[in-house]
Amino acid sequence: MSAISSAPQTPPAERVQPSAHEERQAHILMAARSCFARAGFHGASMQQICAEAKMSPGALYRYFPSKDSIIEAIAEEERVQAAECMAALSSHGPLVDRITQVGVDYLRQIRDDESGGLMVEICSESLRNTSVGQRFKDIEMEVRGAMLSALRRGQEMGEVDPAIDLEVVLTVLFAVGDGLVMRLQFEPTDPETIRPYLRRVVAGLLAPGAPGE
Amino acid sequence: MSAISSAPQTPPAERVQPSAHEERQAHILMAARSCFARAGFHGASMQQICAEAKMSPGALYRYFPSKDSIIEAIAEEERVQAAECMAALSSHGPLVDRITQVGVDYLRQIRDDESGGLMVEICSESLRNTSVGQRFKDIEMEVRGAMLSALRRGQEMGEVDPAIDLEVVLTVLFAVGDGLVMRLQFEPTDPETIRPYLRRVVAGLLAPGAPGE
Repeated sequence: MSAISSAPQTPPAERVQPSAHEERQAHILMAARSCFARAGFHGASMQQICAEAKMSPGALYRYFPSKDSIIEAIAEEERVQAAECMAALSSHGPLVDRITQVGVDYLRQIRDDESGGLMVEICSESLRNTSVGQRFKDIEMEVRGAMLSALRRGQEMGEVDPAIDLEVVLTVLFAVGDGLVMRLQFEPTDPETIRPYLRRVVAGLLAPGAPGE
Repeated sequence: MSAISSAPQTPPAERVQPSAHEERQAHILMAARSCFARAGFHGASMQQICAEAKMSPGALYRYFPSKDSIIEAIAEEERVQAAECMAALSSHGPLVDRITQVGVDYLRQIRDDESGGLMVEICSESLRNTSVGQRFKDIEMEVRGAMLSALRRGQEMGEVDPAIDLEVVLTVLFAVGDGLVMRLQFEPTDPETIRPYLRRVVAGLLAPGAPGE
């Protein structure tokens, strides 16, 4: 859609400066995220988003004609960020370290975006089976597919216990992710402090002959 | 308050039958839980709770004069249930097995009560620092205190790695619990299927010389 996504040959380090239009869009989305985190997707109104963004309805509607179009743009941001976090999965080194890195990157990103509260609202939407919930579930299915492939390769390479059920492992891994996002909202903790413990969790889940046996 | 709590000498197996009054109370609380899970503590009205319980406002108010008194009664139910789950912690056997049992009991209880949706609402309340959120945080602090004592004893007995920070471990363990409650709402899974994987997580977190090192 944007100049960036239609020019994949531009390496990330030389990304073009965002235009004034893109900066304004990002500003609105940040304001909308705060409103959704506070009042829920259903509860937050376009008026509240305008107030938070310090923009008139007329100005804001030039960027986003509806609340749905804002939610869609946030979902797209989340999809891009999820893909960025998953990059660590295809790096080198032991699988346990790579998965731990994905987790730490994810927690750091949520902290930097202050989007933990929004994540809780997204879970609540998913539980209620709304279209917003479905949109975010689709993103998760992409991430889950990539993780499943990595775990299968790990089983072939002897890094992952061949006896474990990878679907259940993924459910538990995603639960750990959800739970940490929520917990770190209550008890702000540096993701680096969590890293060795997250590594223990991942290793315990995956390692052949782990102490869980 | 009730006949049961004022007669602690009655062993659980011989508990007196609940009175008609108690049965009616339990019925109202079950209806209220559904409403709160669907619409949130703030969003659900006394009218909705009456409709769900199939009772007139006059009849319902004889049991609970306000929404706050219903929330307080649900918090008390949760406190009692948390204590029941924690009973496994003071049983015999390896600490990893006992903690795993607490987790499985907790997941089973939430499934049987169909209270997973309510738990997500409680998290949302806790994040917003409401009085409802605080009430449930207090219950959690009790559980956390009991877990901390058990882990400290585990360190003294050599069952728990002396090098780990127990506060961070507890944050991760509670995150796993929160996350599993939420996940099992999306993907209903028998807690017994989760047990061996939860055991791996707990063992990975606690075991001296775990593969996390």
